[in-house]
Amino acid sequence: MGDFKHLVVVKFKEGVVVEEILKGMEKLVSEVETVKSFEWGQDLESLEMLRQGFTHAFMMTFCNKEDYIAFQAHPKHAEFSATFSAAIEKIVLLDFPGVLVKAPAPAPA
Amino acid sequence: MGDFKHLVVVKFKEGVVVEEILKGMEKLVSEVETVKSFEWGQDLESLEMLRQGFTHAFMMTFCNKEDYIAFQAHPKHAEFSATFSAAIEKIVLLDFPGVLVKAPAPAPA
Repeated sequence: MGDFKHLVVVKFKEGVVVEEILKGMEKLVSEVETVKSFEWGQDLESLEMLRQGFTHAFMMTFCNKEDYIAFQAHPKHAEFSATFSAAIEKIVLLDFPGVLVKAPAPAPA
Repeated sequence: MGDFKHLVVVKFKEGVVVEEILKGMEKLVSEVETVKSFEWGQDLESLEMLRQGFTHAFMMTFCNKEDYIAFQAHPKHAEFSATFSAAIEKIVLLDFPGVLVKAPAPAPA
């Protein structure tokens, strides 16, 4: 089995200081060991019609589903979730085993 | 500048053979050189309330924004987009420079 992905796409409420939320998220992923990698981004390019109000994407990668479940059950996650939930206007969340079709070429030696 | 990400979250129309769409997408990313990596997944775990009908996520990574723009302008992309658009009921699409906060540990030598 490959990596397990936790993908969150959100629109934050007006007035929310996104930098603070991000700081909390960075702290969370650094504190919870089962998070293998974490990447995020703010949409800059997509047409409004296509992004439908969503502005940010967050993608966490775990070695397997068990590690993801452990993350979800982690007290730090529960704590952060409360803050995060209060800050968002809408959310789409997908959890799935990642299927890697094209892998990055290895870095030149 | 880091990687540039193209994230697509969709719900397919009823009756669509997702395997065929996937085959087309795999062909596309293998044919267009500027696609650095491509990963996808089908949601298995998220609560319906949180996934809001969306079922699949597709994430393409490019070395930079220019490579992404080249991909978008590629005739193979235009060709595939027509098929893809016809197959989806709803979509959220975000394009953003990826911010890597926690990187996977290097594989043991």
